[in-house]
Amino acid sequence: LVGLATLPMLYPHAALAELERVAVLPGIRGVGIATTIGDRELSDRSFWPIYERIEELGLPIFLHPLKVIGHERLQPHYFNNLLGNPFDTAVAAAHLIFDGVLDRFPQLEISLPHAGGALPILIGRFDQGFAVSKRKGAASRSPEHQPSHYLRRFTYDTISHSAQVIQYLVELVGADRIMLGSDHCFDMGDREPVQFVSSIEQLDAKQRAQILGRTAARLLRLEA
Amino acid sequence: LVGLATLPMLYPHAALAELERVAVLPGIRGVGIATTIGDRELSDRSFWPIYERIEELGLPIFLHPLKVIGHERLQPHYFNNLLGNPFDTAVAAAHLIFDGVLDRFPQLEISLPHAGGALPILIGRFDQGFAVSKRKGAASRSPEHQPSHYLRRFTYDTISHSAQVIQYLVELVGADRIMLGSDHCFDMGDREPVQFVSSIEQLDAKQRAQILGRTAARLLRLEA
Repeated sequence: LVGLATLPMLYPHAALAELERVAVLPGIRGVGIATTIGDRELSDRSFWPIYERIEELGLPIFLHPLKVIGHERLQPHYFNNLLGNPFDTAVAAAHLIFDGVLDRFPQLEISLPHAGGALPILIGRFDQGFAVSKRKGAASRSPEHQPSHYLRRFTYDTISHSAQVIQYLVELVGADRIMLGSDHCFDMGDREPVQFVSSIEQLDAKQRAQILGRTAARLLRLEA
Repeated sequence: LVGLATLPMLYPHAALAELERVAVLPGIRGVGIATTIGDRELSDRSFWPIYERIEELGLPIFLHPLKVIGHERLQPHYFNNLLGNPFDTAVAAAHLIFDGVLDRFPQLEISLPHAGGALPILIGRFDQGFAVSKRKGAASRSPEHQPSHYLRRFTYDTISHSAQVIQYLVELVGADRIMLGSDHCFDMGDREPVQFVSSIEQLDAKQRAQILGRTAARLLRLEA
Protein backbone atom coordinates (compact mmCIF):
# COMPACT_ATOMS: atom_id res chain seq x y z
CA LEU A 1 0.00 0.00 0.00
CA VAL A 2 1.09 3.53 -0.78
CA GLY A 3 -0.83 6.66 0.15
CA LEU A 4 -1.52 10.27 -0.62
CA ALA A 5 -0.85 13.11 1.80
CA THR A 6 -3.34 15.85 2.60
CA LEU A 7 -2.21 19.44 3.00
CA PRO A 8 -3.75 22.39 4.91
CA MET A 9 -4.36 24.25 1.64
CA LEU A 10 -6.35 27.03 3.32
CA TYR A 11 -3.00 28.14 4.74
CA PRO A 12 -0.51 27.94 1.88
CA HIS A 13 2.59 28.51 4.04
CA ALA A 14 1.57 25.72 6.39
CA ALA A 15 0.76 23.55 3.38
CA LEU A 16 4.28 24.06 2.05
CA ALA A 17 5.80 23.08 5.40
CA GLU A 18 3.57 20.01 5.64
CA LEU A 19 4.50 19.07 2.09
CA GLU A 20 8.20 18.97 3.06
CA ARG A 21 7.38 16.83 6.08
CA VAL A 22 5.25 14.24 4.29
CA ALA A 23 7.35 14.03 1.12
CA VAL A 24 10.04 12.05 2.94
CA LEU A 25 7.67 9.69 4.74
CA PRO A 26 7.76 6.10 3.49
CA GLY A 27 4.88 5.20 1.18
CA ILE A 28 3.72 8.73 0.39
CA ARG A 29 3.45 8.90 -3.39
CA GLY A 30 1.14 11.82 -4.03
CA VAL A 31 -1.02 14.59 -2.62
CA GLY A 32 -4.82 14.73 -2.33
CA ILE A 33 -6.39 18.16 -2.85
CA ALA A 34 -10.02 19.29 -3.00
CA THR A 35 -11.41 20.78 -6.21
CA THR A 36 -11.84 24.14 -4.47
CA ILE A 37 -10.18 25.52 -1.35
CA GLY A 38 -12.77 27.48 0.59
CA ASP A 39 -13.86 30.19 -1.81
CA ARG A 40 -10.69 29.98 -3.89
CA GLU A 41 -10.40 28.18 -7.20
CA LEU A 42 -7.41 25.88 -7.59
CA SER A 43 -5.78 28.37 -9.95
CA ASP A 44 -5.56 31.01 -7.20
CA ARG A 45 -2.05 32.45 -7.17
CA SER A 46 -1.64 31.67 -3.46
CA PHE A 47 -1.32 27.99 -4.41
CA TRP A 48 1.31 28.35 -7.11
CA PRO A 49 4.31 27.96 -4.75
CA ILE A 50 2.76 24.70 -3.56
CA TYR A 51 2.35 23.44 -7.14
CA GLU A 52 5.95 24.47 -7.86
CA ARG A 53 7.25 22.37 -4.98
CA ILE A 54 4.92 19.44 -5.73
CA GLU A 55 6.21 19.47 -9.30
CA GLU A 56 9.84 19.49 -8.08
CA LEU A 57 9.11 16.56 -5.78
CA GLY A 58 7.53 14.63 -8.65
CA LEU A 59 4.36 13.87 -6.70
CA PRO A 60 1.05 13.50 -8.54
CA ILE A 61 -1.97 15.43 -7.27
CA PHE A 62 -5.27 13.62 -6.89
CA LEU A 63 -8.29 15.94 -6.93
CA HIS A 64 -11.63 15.24 -5.28
CA PRO A 65 -14.71 17.45 -4.80
CA LEU A 66 -15.91 18.37 -1.32
CA LYS A 67 -18.42 21.24 -1.24
CA VAL A 68 -19.61 21.30 -4.83
CA ILE A 69 -20.88 24.00 -7.18
CA GLY A 70 -24.57 24.73 -6.69
CA HIS A 71 -24.77 22.45 -3.64
CA GLU A 72 -27.83 24.25 -2.25
CA ARG A 73 -29.73 23.43 -5.41
CA LEU A 74 -28.44 19.87 -5.61
CA GLN A 75 -29.91 18.60 -2.32
CA PRO A 76 -32.58 16.22 -3.72
CA HIS A 77 -31.90 12.68 -4.90
CA TYR A 78 -28.21 12.61 -3.95
CA PHE A 79 -27.60 15.10 -6.80
CA ASN A 80 -24.69 16.68 -4.88
CA ASN A 81 -22.91 13.42 -5.51
CA LEU A 82 -24.40 12.33 -8.87
CA LEU A 83 -24.09 15.75 -10.53
CA GLY A 84 -22.16 18.01 -8.17
CA ASN A 85 -19.03 15.86 -7.96
CA PRO A 86 -18.50 15.54 -11.73
CA PHE A 87 -19.40 19.23 -12.20
CA ASP A 88 -16.86 20.39 -9.64
CA THR A 89 -14.08 18.31 -11.14
CA ALA A 90 -14.75 19.96 -14.50
CA VAL A 91 -14.69 23.43 -12.92
CA ALA A 92 -11.36 22.70 -11.26
CA ALA A 93 -9.83 21.31 -14.45
CA ALA A 94 -11.13 24.31 -16.40
CA HIS A 95 -9.39 26.72 -14.03
CA LEU A 96 -6.13 24.77 -14.18
CA ILE A 97 -6.28 24.95 -17.98
CA PHE A 98 -7.64 28.46 -18.60
CA ASP A 99 -5.67 30.21 -15.84
CA GLY A 100 -2.35 28.84 -17.08
CA VAL A 101 -1.43 26.53 -14.17
CA LEU A 102 -0.71 23.66 -16.55
CA ASP A 103 1.41 25.96 -18.73
CA ARG A 104 3.43 27.25 -15.78
CA PHE A 105 4.06 23.77 -14.32
CA PRO A 106 4.58 21.49 -17.31
CA GLN A 107 5.54 18.43 -15.25
CA LEU A 108 2.65 18.68 -12.78
CA GLU A 109 0.54 15.53 -12.80
CA ILE A 110 -3.16 15.99 -11.98
CA SER A 111 -5.42 13.02 -11.49
CA LEU A 112 -9.18 13.48 -11.83
CA PRO A 113 -11.76 11.30 -10.06
CA HIS A 114 -14.93 9.82 -11.55
CA ALA A 115 -13.36 9.37 -14.96
CA GLY A 116 -12.80 13.11 -15.21
CA GLY A 117 -16.37 14.01 -14.24
CA ALA A 118 -18.03 16.21 -16.83
CA LEU A 119 -14.72 17.39 -18.35
CA PRO A 120 -14.31 14.83 -21.15
CA ILE A 121 -17.65 15.63 -22.77
CA LEU A 122 -17.16 19.40 -22.58
CA ILE A 123 -13.79 19.61 -24.28
CA GLY A 124 -15.14 20.60 -27.71
CA ARG A 125 -17.05 23.39 -26.04
CA PHE A 126 -13.87 24.52 -24.24
CA ASP A 127 -11.99 24.62 -27.55
CA GLN A 128 -14.75 26.65 -29.16
CA GLY A 129 -14.77 29.08 -26.22
CA PHE A 130 -11.00 29.41 -26.52
CA ALA A 131 -11.29 30.14 -30.24
CA VAL A 132 -14.00 32.73 -29.60
CA SER A 133 -11.93 34.53 -26.98
CA LYS A 134 -8.93 34.54 -29.33
CA ARG A 135 -11.10 36.07 -32.06
CA LYS A 136 -12.28 38.73 -29.65
CA GLY A 137 -8.68 39.53 -28.78
CA ALA A 138 -9.58 39.02 -25.14
CA ALA A 139 -7.95 36.69 -22.67
CA SER A 140 -4.99 38.35 -21.00
CA ARG A 141 -4.52 35.08 -19.13
CA SER A 142 -5.51 32.59 -21.81
CA PRO A 143 -3.74 29.24 -22.03
CA GLU A 144 -0.93 28.74 -24.54
CA HIS A 145 -2.77 25.97 -26.40
CA GLN A 146 -6.37 25.11 -27.05
CA PRO A 147 -7.92 23.32 -24.06
CA SER A 148 -8.03 19.85 -25.66
CA HIS A 149 -4.22 20.00 -25.82
CA TYR A 150 -4.23 19.62 -22.03
CA LEU A 151 -6.49 16.55 -21.79
CA ARG A 152 -3.47 14.25 -21.53
CA ARG A 153 -2.03 16.38 -18.72
CA PHE A 154 -4.65 14.75 -16.54
CA THR A 155 -5.04 11.14 -15.55
CA TYR A 156 -8.47 9.62 -15.03
CA ASP A 157 -9.90 6.78 -12.96
CA THR A 158 -12.53 4.30 -14.15
CA ILE A 159 -15.37 5.29 -11.80
CA SER A 160 -17.95 6.01 -14.47
CA HIS A 161 -20.26 2.99 -14.09
CA SER A 162 -20.38 2.90 -17.87
CA ALA A 163 -18.28 0.89 -20.31
CA GLN A 164 -19.22 3.38 -23.04
CA VAL A 165 -17.78 6.27 -21.05
CA ILE A 166 -14.49 4.42 -20.57
CA GLN A 167 -14.36 3.57 -24.25
CA TYR A 168 -14.94 7.24 -25.12
CA LEU A 169 -12.25 8.26 -22.64
CA VAL A 170 -9.74 5.76 -24.05
CA GLU A 171 -10.27 7.22 -27.51
CA LEU A 172 -9.96 10.75 -26.16
CA VAL A 173 -6.90 10.51 -23.90
CA GLY A 174 -5.40 7.02 -24.28
CA ALA A 175 -5.29 4.10 -21.86
CA ASP A 176 -1.90 5.24 -20.58
CA ARG A 177 -3.75 8.09 -18.85
CA ILE A 178 -6.49 5.93 -17.29
CA MET A 179 -6.25 3.77 -14.19
CA LEU A 180 -8.43 1.51 -12.14
CA GLY A 181 -10.53 3.21 -9.47
CA SER A 182 -12.67 1.60 -6.80
CA ASP A 183 -14.00 4.55 -4.75
CA HIS A 184 -13.94 2.08 -1.90
CA CYS A 185 -15.64 2.34 0.68
CA PHE A 186 -18.37 4.60 -0.72
CA ASP A 187 -21.75 3.50 -2.07
CA MET A 188 -21.00 5.22 -5.37
CA GLY A 189 -17.92 3.03 -5.74
CA ASP A 190 -17.38 0.02 -7.98
CA ARG A 191 -17.18 -3.19 -5.97
CA GLU A 192 -15.81 -5.21 -8.88
CA PRO A 193 -13.64 -2.72 -10.76
CA VAL A 194 -11.33 -5.31 -12.35
CA GLN A 195 -14.33 -7.21 -13.65
CA PHE A 196 -15.78 -3.95 -14.98
CA VAL A 197 -12.63 -3.10 -16.93
CA SER A 198 -12.22 -6.68 -18.14
CA SER A 199 -15.77 -6.63 -19.50
CA ILE A 200 -15.12 -3.70 -21.87
CA GLU A 201 -14.79 -5.59 -25.13
CA GLN A 202 -13.29 -2.79 -27.18
CA LEU A 203 -10.10 -2.66 -25.10
CA ASP A 204 -7.11 -4.57 -26.40
CA ALA A 205 -4.75 -6.46 -24.08
CA LYS A 206 -2.29 -3.61 -23.82
CA GLN A 207 -4.96 -1.04 -22.99
CA ARG A 208 -6.45 -3.36 -20.39
CA ALA A 209 -3.05 -3.87 -18.77
CA GLN A 210 -2.46 -0.13 -18.70
CA ILE A 211 -5.78 0.58 -17.04
CA LEU A 212 -5.52 -2.33 -14.62
CA GLY A 213 -2.08 -1.39 -13.39
CA ARG A 214 0.62 0.10 -15.57
CA THR A 215 -0.70 3.66 -15.63
CA ALA A 216 -0.97 3.74 -11.83
CA ALA A 217 2.37 1.96 -11.36
CA ARG A 218 4.15 4.59 -13.41
CA LEU A 219 2.33 7.49 -11.76
CA LEU A 220 2.94 6.18 -8.23
CA ARG A 221 6.46 4.98 -9.00
CA LEU A 222 5.69 1.35 -8.23
CA GLU A 223 7.38 -0.09 -11.27
CA ALA A 224 10.17 -2.62 -10.71
CA LEU B 1 -39.46 28.06 -41.35
CA VAL B 2 -41.30 26.78 -38.30
CA GLY B 3 -40.86 28.11 -34.79
CA LEU B 4 -41.16 27.41 -31.10
CA ALA B 5 -43.44 29.33 -28.76
CA THR B 6 -42.36 30.74 -25.43
CA LEU B 7 -44.62 30.56 -22.40
CA PRO B 8 -44.79 32.72 -19.25
CA MET B 9 -43.80 29.72 -17.10
CA LEU B 10 -43.44 31.80 -13.92
CA TYR B 11 -47.25 32.02 -14.01
CA PRO B 12 -48.49 28.53 -14.85
CA HIS B 13 -52.12 29.56 -15.40
CA ALA B 14 -51.06 32.26 -17.84
CA ALA B 15 -48.70 29.78 -19.47
CA LEU B 16 -51.60 27.38 -20.04
CA ALA B 17 -53.69 30.11 -21.62
CA GLU B 18 -50.81 31.21 -23.83
CA LEU B 19 -50.21 27.61 -24.83
CA GLU B 20 -53.78 27.37 -26.16
CA ARG B 21 -53.34 30.60 -28.08
CA VAL B 22 -50.05 29.70 -29.76
CA ALA B 23 -50.85 26.05 -30.45
CA VAL B 24 -53.19 27.01 -33.28
CA LEU B 25 -50.88 29.57 -34.85
CA PRO B 26 -49.43 28.56 -38.22
CA GLY B 27 -45.84 27.34 -38.04
CA ILE B 28 -45.66 26.78 -34.28
CA ARG B 29 -44.27 23.27 -33.83
CA GLY B 30 -42.97 23.26 -30.29
CA VAL B 31 -42.37 25.13 -27.06
CA GLY B 32 -39.10 26.59 -25.74
CA ILE B 33 -38.63 26.43 -21.97
CA ALA B 34 -35.70 27.40 -19.74
CA THR B 35 -33.91 24.72 -17.71
CA THR B 36 -35.16 26.33 -14.49
CA ILE B 37 -38.07 28.66 -13.88
CA GLY B 38 -36.97 31.24 -11.31
CA ASP B 39 -36.10 29.15 -8.27
CA ARG B 40 -38.21 26.19 -9.36
CA GLU B 41 -36.85 23.07 -10.97
CA LEU B 42 -38.68 21.87 -14.09
CA SER B 43 -40.19 19.00 -12.10
CA ASP B 44 -42.07 21.38 -9.84
CA ARG B 45 -45.70 20.23 -9.57
CA SER B 46 -46.98 23.65 -10.65
CA PHE B 47 -45.79 22.84 -14.18
CA TRP B 48 -47.41 19.43 -14.52
CA PRO B 49 -50.70 20.73 -15.97
CA ILE B 50 -48.66 22.52 -18.63
CA TYR B 51 -46.77 19.33 -19.49
CA GLU B 52 -50.06 17.45 -19.64
CA ARG B 53 -51.48 19.86 -22.19
CA ILE B 54 -48.23 20.04 -24.18
CA GLU B 55 -48.25 16.25 -24.36
CA GLU B 56 -51.88 16.25 -25.56
CA LEU B 57 -51.02 18.82 -28.23
CA GLY B 58 -48.10 16.70 -29.41
CA LEU B 59 -45.65 19.60 -29.23
CA PRO B 60 -41.99 18.93 -28.45
CA ILE B 61 -40.30 20.99 -25.73
CA PHE B 62 -36.91 22.49 -26.40
CA LEU B 63 -34.95 23.29 -23.24
CA HIS B 64 -32.26 25.94 -22.93
CA PRO B 65 -30.37 27.28 -19.90
CA LEU B 66 -30.71 30.90 -18.83
CA LYS B 67 -29.37 31.62 -15.31
CA VAL B 68 -27.19 28.59 -14.68
CA ILE B 69 -26.20 26.64 -11.60
CA GLY B 70 -23.28 28.24 -9.76
CA HIS B 71 -23.36 31.29 -12.03
CA GLU B 72 -21.63 33.50 -9.43
CA ARG B 73 -18.66 31.14 -9.42
CA LEU B 74 -18.63 30.75 -13.21
CA GLN B 75 -17.95 34.39 -14.12
CA PRO B 76 -14.36 34.04 -15.43
CA HIS B 77 -13.48 32.90 -18.93
CA TYR B 78 -17.05 32.62 -20.22
CA PHE B 79 -17.48 29.60 -17.91
CA ASN B 80 -21.19 30.39 -17.45
CA ASN B 81 -21.53 29.40 -21.06
CA LEU B 82 -18.78 26.75 -21.44
CA LEU B 83 -19.63 24.92 -18.21
CA GLY B 84 -22.82 26.41 -16.80
CA ASN B 85 -24.99 25.73 -19.84
CA PRO B 86 -24.15 22.01 -20.11
CA PHE B 87 -24.39 21.65 -16.32
CA ASP B 88 -27.84 23.22 -16.16
CA THR B 89 -29.18 21.02 -18.93
CA ALA B 90 -28.05 17.97 -16.97
CA VAL B 91 -29.70 19.26 -13.79
CA ALA B 92 -32.98 19.80 -15.63
CA ALA B 93 -32.88 16.37 -17.25
CA ALA B 94 -32.07 14.78 -13.89
CA HIS B 95 -35.13 16.36 -12.31
CA LEU B 96 -37.38 15.28 -15.17
CA ILE B 97 -36.10 11.71 -14.75
CA PHE B 98 -35.79 11.38 -10.95
CA ASP B 99 -38.98 13.27 -10.08
CA GLY B 100 -41.12 11.13 -12.37
CA VAL B 101 -42.13 13.71 -14.99
CA LEU B 102 -41.10 11.37 -17.82
CA ASP B 103 -43.05 8.51 -16.20
CA ARG B 104 -46.19 10.61 -15.78
CA PHE B 105 -46.11 11.97 -19.33
CA PRO B 106 -44.90 9.10 -21.49
CA GLN B 107 -45.43 10.91 -24.83
CA LEU B 108 -43.73 14.14 -23.79
CA GLU B 109 -40.82 14.94 -26.11
CA ILE B 110 -37.95 16.88 -24.55
CA SER B 111 -35.13 18.22 -26.68
CA LEU B 112 -31.81 19.07 -25.02
CA PRO B 113 -29.38 21.68 -26.37
CA HIS B 114 -25.59 21.34 -26.68
CA ALA B 115 -25.77 17.63 -27.40
CA GLY B 116 -27.37 17.01 -24.01
CA GLY B 117 -24.78 19.03 -22.11
CA ALA B 118 -23.18 16.98 -19.34
CA LEU B 119 -26.04 14.45 -19.21
CA PRO B 120 -24.69 11.79 -21.61
CA ILE B 121 -21.44 11.28 -19.70
CA LEU B 122 -23.15 11.10 -16.30
CA ILE B 123 -25.68 8.42 -17.07
CA GLY B 124 -23.69 5.55 -15.52
CA ARG B 125 -23.42 7.59 -12.37
CA PHE B 126 -27.18 8.22 -12.42
CA ASP B 127 -27.85 4.48 -12.73
CA GLN B 128 -25.51 3.73 -9.84
CA GLY B 129 -27.21 6.39 -7.69
CA PHE B 130 -30.58 4.91 -8.56
CA ALA B 131 -29.37 1.42 -7.57
CA VAL B 132 -27.97 2.78 -4.30
CA SER B 133 -31.24 4.51 -3.41
CA LYS B 134 -33.15 1.30 -4.21
CA ARG B 135 -30.84 -0.66 -1.90
CA LYS B 136 -31.40 1.89 0.84
CA GLY B 137 -35.16 1.55 0.38
CA ALA B 138 -35.34 5.31 -0.03
CA ALA B 139 -36.88 7.25 -2.87
CA SER B 140 -40.58 7.79 -2.35
CA ARG B 141 -40.55 9.58 -5.69
CA SER B 142 -38.01 7.47 -7.56
CA PRO B 143 -38.44 6.85 -11.27
CA GLU B 144 -39.98 3.60 -12.50
CA HIS B 145 -36.88 2.57 -14.44
CA GLN B 146 -33.18 3.15 -14.08
CA PRO B 147 -32.18 6.57 -15.44
CA SER B 148 -30.47 5.29 -18.59
CA HIS B 149 -33.87 3.92 -19.66
CA TYR B 150 -34.95 7.52 -20.23
CA LEU B 151 -32.03 8.62 -22.42
CA ARG B 152 -34.07 8.03 -25.56
CA ARG B 153 -36.93 10.11 -24.17
CA PHE B 154 -34.76 13.10 -24.99
CA THR B 155 -33.59 14.36 -28.34
CA TYR B 156 -30.19 16.01 -28.72
CA ASP B 157 -28.69 18.57 -31.06
CA THR B 158 -25.16 18.41 -32.52
CA ILE B 159 -23.69 21.50 -30.82
CA SER B 160 -20.76 19.74 -29.15
CA HIS B 161 -17.87 20.99 -31.31
CA SER B 162 -16.52 17.46 -31.14
CA ALA B 163 -16.98 14.59 -33.57
CA GLN B 164 -16.07 12.17 -30.78
CA VAL B 165 -18.91 13.46 -28.61
CA ILE B 166 -21.41 12.95 -31.43
CA GLN B 167 -20.06 9.47 -32.08
CA TYR B 168 -20.45 8.64 -28.37
CA LEU B 169 -23.96 10.08 -28.40
CA VAL B 170 -24.97 8.09 -31.48
CA GLU B 171 -23.86 4.90 -29.75
CA LEU B 172 -25.70 5.90 -26.58
CA VAL B 173 -29.07 7.09 -27.90
CA GLY B 174 -29.16 6.42 -31.65
CA ALA B 175 -29.10 8.83 -34.59
CA ASP B 176 -32.91 8.88 -34.66
CA ARG B 177 -32.71 10.99 -31.47
CA ILE B 178 -30.08 13.43 -32.71
CA MET B 179 -30.58 16.41 -35.00
CA LEU B 180 -28.57 19.17 -36.55
CA GLY B 181 -28.09 22.27 -34.43
CA SER B 182 -26.53 25.57 -35.42
CA ASP B 183 -26.89 27.77 -32.33
CA HIS B 184 -27.09 30.58 -34.83
CA CYS B 185 -26.47 33.54 -34.17
CA PHE B 186 -24.29 32.97 -31.10
CA ASP B 187 -20.50 32.82 -31.00
CA MET B 188 -20.66 29.36 -29.44
CA GLY B 189 -22.59 28.14 -32.46
CA ASP B 190 -21.41 26.02 -35.34
CA ARG B 191 -21.20 28.03 -38.57
CA GLU B 192 -20.85 24.93 -40.75
CA PRO B 193 -23.00 22.34 -38.99
CA VAL B 194 -23.73 20.23 -42.09
CA GLN B 195 -20.02 20.07 -42.87
CA PHE B 196 -19.36 19.09 -39.24
CA VAL B 197 -21.83 16.20 -39.34
CA SER B 198 -20.66 15.13 -42.79
CA SER B 199 -17.08 14.95 -41.53
CA ILE B 200 -17.84 12.36 -38.84
CA GLU B 201 -16.49 9.27 -40.56
CA GLN B 202 -18.07 6.70 -38.26
CA LEU B 203 -21.61 7.65 -39.26
CA ASP B 204 -23.25 5.58 -41.96
CA ALA B 205 -25.49 7.12 -44.61
CA LYS B 206 -28.69 6.42 -42.72
CA GLN B 207 -27.40 7.92 -39.48
CA ARG B 208 -26.14 10.98 -41.34
CA ALA B 209 -29.53 11.45 -43.01
CA GLN B 210 -31.28 11.14 -39.66
CA ILE B 211 -29.07 13.73 -38.01
CA LEU B 212 -29.15 16.09 -41.00
CA GLY B 213 -32.92 16.10 -41.26
CA ARG B 214 -35.09 13.10 -40.61
CA THR B 215 -35.04 13.29 -36.81
CA ALA B 216 -36.04 16.96 -36.85
CA ALA B 217 -38.60 16.43 -39.61
CA ARG B 218 -40.36 13.79 -37.56
CA LEU B 219 -40.18 15.79 -34.34
CA LEU B 220 -41.43 19.00 -35.97
CA ARG B 221 -43.96 17.20 -38.19
CA LEU B 222 -42.35 18.38 -41.40
CA GLU B 223 -42.46 15.03 -43.14
CA ALA B 224 -44.23 14.80 -46.45
